[in-house]
Amino acid sequence: MPVRLDARSPDFESRFTALLNDKRETSDDVSKAVAAIIADVQARGDAAVVDYTNRFDRVTAPSLAALKVTEADINAAEAACAPDLLAALDIAAQRIADFHARQAPSDIAYTDAAGVDLGLRWRPVEAAGLYVPGGLASYPSSVLMNALPAKVAGVARIVMVVPAPDGVLNPSVLAAAKRAGVTEIYKIGGAQAVAALAYGTETIAPVDKIVGPGNAYVAAAKRAVFGQVGIDSIAGPSEILVVADSKTDPDWIAVDLLSQAEHDSSAQSILIADDADYADAVARAVDIRLQSLPRSEIAAASWRDNGAIILVESFDAALPIIDRIAAEHLELAMDDPQALAAKIRNAGAIFLGRYTPEAMGDYIAGPNHVLPTARSARFSSGLGVLDFMKRTTLVGCSPASLAALGPSVLTLAAAEGLDAHGLSVAVRIPEQTR
Amino acid sequence: MPVRLDARSPDFESRFTALLNDKRETSDDVSKAVAAIIADVQARGDAAVVDYTNRFDRVTAPSLAALKVTEADINAAEAACAPDLLAALDIAAQRIADFHARQAPSDIAYTDAAGVDLGLRWRPVEAAGLYVPGGLASYPSSVLMNALPAKVAGVARIVMVVPAPDGVLNPSVLAAAKRAGVTEIYKIGGAQAVAALAYGTETIAPVDKIVGPGNAYVAAAKRAVFGQVGIDSIAGPSEILVVADSKTDPDWIAVDLLSQAEHDSSAQSILIADDADYADAVARAVDIRLQSLPRSEIAAASWRDNGAIILVESFDAALPIIDRIAAEHLELAMDDPQALAAKIRNAGAIFLGRYTPEAMGDYIAGPNHVLPTARSARFSSGLGVLDFMKRTTLVGCSPASLAALGPSVLTLAAAEGLDAHGLSVAVRIPEQTR
Repeated sequence: MPVRLDARSPDFESRFTALLNDKRETSDDVSKAVAAIIADVQARGDAAVVDYTNRFDRVTAPSLAALKVTEADINAAEAACAPDLLAALDIAAQRIADFHARQAPSDIAYTDAAGVDLGLRWRPVEAAGLYVPGGLASYPSSVLMNALPAKVAGVARIVMVVPAPDGVLNPSVLAAAKRAGVTEIYKIGGAQAVAALAYGTETIAPVDKIVGPGNAYVAAAKRAVFGQVGIDSIAGPSEILVVADSKTDPDWIAVDLLSQAEHDSSAQSILIADDADYADAVARAVDIRLQSLPRSEIAAASWRDNGAIILVESFDAALPIIDRIAAEHLELAMDDPQALAAKIRNAGAIFLGRYTPEAMGDYIAGPNHVLPTARSARFSSGLGVLDFMKRTTLVGCSPASLAALGPSVLTLAAAEGLDAHGLSVAVRIPEQTR
Repeated sequence: MPVRLDARSPDFESRFTALLNDKRETSDDVSKAVAAIIADVQARGDAAVVDYTNRFDRVTAPSLAALKVTEADINAAEAACAPDLLAALDIAAQRIADFHARQAPSDIAYTDAAGVDLGLRWRPVEAAGLYVPGGLASYPSSVLMNALPAKVAGVARIVMVVPAPDGVLNPSVLAAAKRAGVTEIYKIGGAQAVAALAYGTETIAPVDKIVGPGNAYVAAAKRAVFGQVGIDSIAGPSEILVVADSKTDPDWIAVDLLSQAEHDSSAQSILIADDADYADAVARAVDIRLQSLPRSEIAAASWRDNGAIILVESFDAALPIIDRIAAEHLELAMDDPQALAAKIRNAGAIFLGRYTPEAMGDYIAGPNHVLPTARSARFSSGLGVLDFMKRTTLVGCSPASLAALGPSVLTLAAAEGLDAHGLSVAVRIPEQTR
């Protein structure tokens, strides 16, 4: 049974804090094994990547070149996909690209009153690596969501790695890659793939940024190469918070909660309701749906171990609770959801109203489905175009503007005891202004 | 002697690669000691912070409250600063705030052709922590550069921690804090201060993001609390790359190179020149300046061990070299520096022309002086307003837009084997559209 909390009860604060602090993830410490693999890939390059791939993925590739996906492979994969799937991928890719295109940042350039030229400009990273899990969790939607922001950012080279255990690759993943414009693809995975992307090998040129989800080895490898390259966040188990008044069919809310729970037994689904009877009705609907859901074992474990129902006096009173949960996905199933949404500080993505199940955002709405987990929406954001770009600032002084502002630099550099800093200004300005 | 490379010589590639891969930083592994301190602060709160502070900073504070800086302390510190220093801090604060105000991002909100409401909005983090080193490296400029972006972002609560070894605090640091609008300040430092900011204690409420430079213990603590809170990048030793034609006084370039070298013996100063005689003249000017520079021991070690002079055929031919160095600070001391700047992909900050020594950017120009080190300008940016904000995306469907787009979600969810995802859409749309 999921925990039930009532915001009006005296023990609420302690029980709510316990819920927030509950660590749902069991992380194996694989950092030593990962460090050894990374060092080996740095030392032996292609040969090490091929050795690990043959061992872990049970294949017999003679070289890394043999693990490169060809254009013929991609076209064959596409031909193996059902036409309605290809059409859905087309629609999703277009909508995701459209939404992300609006995120293109503006450069800054101006000359200020002192005559200093000032600027800030954005440039894409030169090359990005995209990790795609193999096997059952190999999702075409994830390829679109990770690759398209890089494409929109203008990243010239996008390299995808996806393991093909026993040689098997999900054809829809290659079809999605084609739609995202990704053409450099290797059938490799694990820490060895992350190391190859970060440090490069004879066959794979290194990238500047690595994104995409993966298992504990992939997460540890991304942590280890951070600094050598940029990485996206390390994703934790998925979460949904549904805030519902009593006017939405309880079954609709039940399947929304289960759409998160079915991902993973450590996923978390939380309902906030202002009506105890309605909350009961949703809980009953969840139990009924669990009887027929194909992934009911996973979903039931998630709901039982990590689910929660929180009763509140009013949704305005729930605001601090919503902000403290800082949910990855927040559904507001109520009249005038915009009014509540405007007051919320922390959420990865907000789904507005009774007709916006989170699955719309997972696949097709347009915003990214790579979102901050584990309360990190307090300080971080979903994946976007800016994650594949970086800023450079620019300053240009004339002799006059340097002479005008230079004396302040002399004062500050002297206060900080950094004489060469001061000298670098002093030598350039007339003696009387120093 | 700094290394000398010539881009036209056959061994250039191997020697340049070696220069890029040279690890200048010796990082002590203090992670175990830091983990113990963090665990103790989590367990014992105020008492642990006070114990470590009394021990490491050689003070006798009875409580954490006693380590809080009062308004009277701040005003007394300000009164202890020379008027010209206060005036310079005022000018710097105003210029930094002005430049950062232009970085305020725009929200996105529109209804697309399918009738879906889509949006992306930015909100400041609720609370930010600012680490300021104590003792000799306690720089008022660093307080302005770290606090003002948070202030401009709209962060409601900014908490500063700065250790006061033997009770001594640099008054200019408090004067800078006042100018940045920071009022909650504690005289604590090290891993214990980072832990207090991340997890909170009885006296200090936790923050959402921690920024600012520090020693190996502070860096390890920031790494350890990452995830619980956001952090800025872990800064490495500072770097400057000066690209100079032969028309700037060699002494000017020499002091520019030394303004980086005087920070730290692991700092790196690199000159790219297209004229060997000019490069020799700069090297001679460096040697002369080193004879009189107060911090000559540090600067000489940096120049000798990490400095480099790279000769190139032309500055256009130097572009790939400049991009691979991806310097934290890049000075273009030449005619028409904008033309070259426009072609450069990777640099933290660019200083344009003969009259823009990097020190202008360190103190007063306006852009931030917290910049990506160790080649990370390939994928990361200097500190800015966006680092204290986060994005939330919004999606709102009507019954009609859900019915129009829903079938694609059913197809994709079925392909990914996520039935509840599909159900959450199916229950909300008319049967004939499924």
